[in-house]
Amino acid sequence: MSFSPLIDELITALRCLPGVGPKSAQRMAFQLLLQRRDGAARLTRTLERALEQVGQCSQCRTLTEQTLCEVCANPRRNRALLCVVESPIDALALETAGSYQGLYYVLHGKLSPIDGIGPAEIGIPALFERLQQEPVEELIVATNATLEGEATAHYIADRARSLSIRCTRIAHGVPLGGELEYVDGGTLSHALSGRTAI
Amino acid sequence: MSFSPLIDELITALRCLPGVGPKSAQRMAFQLLLQRRDGAARLTRTLERALEQVGQCSQCRTLTEQTLCEVCANPRRNRALLCVVESPIDALALETAGSYQGLYYVLHGKLSPIDGIGPAEIGIPALFERLQQEPVEELIVATNATLEGEATAHYIADRARSLSIRCTRIAHGVPLGGELEYVDGGTLSHALSGRTAI
Repeated sequence: MSFSPLIDELITALRCLPGVGPKSAQRMAFQLLLQRRDGAARLTRTLERALEQVGQCSQCRTLTEQTLCEVCANPRRNRALLCVVESPIDALALETAGSYQGLYYVLHGKLSPIDGIGPAEIGIPALFERLQQEPVEELIVATNATLEGEATAHYIADRARSLSIRCTRIAHGVPLGGELEYVDGGTLSHALSGRTAI
Repeated sequence: MSFSPLIDELITALRCLPGVGPKSAQRMAFQLLLQRRDGAARLTRTLERALEQVGQCSQCRTLTEQTLCEVCANPRRNRALLCVVESPIDALALETAGSYQGLYYVLHGKLSPIDGIGPAEIGIPALFERLQQEPVEELIVATNATLEGEATAHYIADRARSLSIRCTRIAHGVPLGGELEYVDGGTLSHALSGRTAI
């Protein structure tokens, strides 16, 4: 309980941010109202506009306020490579790494029969339609290295094989700078079985 | 760089929140636009209203959207006790502890001559005007236990003494549940010199 119902309401509203508990929400509310009023005003304006305008890219399904996102609209990207990811933030992580020059396809989820999420729910039919219409030479599956992510990768690889499309999976192993001592056993087994000649 | 200028703008705007770095801002932006659109809409509405309506309580200077905050307006609070704090969030912390029944006065800062912050900048003249008009029997100084907080406390105590108002300082010592082993030396010295009979 603060000194004003409106500030209490603001503290509750800030709790919708991921990773923000009651204490941080309190600190955020007071800082926004005391020292950062300009920043707070810009935040409301930008968030309001983003909620109104941001939707999915008509081609890769990532989030964007345009019909085609900046990657899909870029004529210099390699249209022969298509990378499948679970969420827009995964595509952003790959994009920030900076070495990938192809296009993306965002599933917005992963196969999870127990939650009623089948291929149709994560846009796999649309993905294969696109594969048949476009000159994609390699489908790179970059779903997460979790149980469901792996199942999704295998499902996509099976369907791609039946259509004779080359399908690859990103490598899993010891992270760069990672010391073997601190890497978990599953990752180590994976790194061993996926060893390459040097 | 994300896939859309508007999302980039939103990520930058979220950085105005305290403790939010580039990675968390990214995660927040995508979560708000994907899973938490209702929460995000409520956040914009509430923050907008709070920025418009929240100002200072005319009596204690804490943040509130009313002329008098809920504490000052509560007839059951003990008007003989006045607690001086540095910021509204300090008053909230005391309020949440739940044992204090008096009123507050918020300085919105602390004495810091090096930054050009003197008594006038933190509302001390108005505090003493209030002390002369109202039946305050005890002034409790709860500024932080920092160098500037202590200097501010001493300055207020000196002026209160010259007006013959009883002035006290909250106790500093070992926190409840704190083990001596992990408490810093300064706190321990303070706890020793402030020992009381049992």
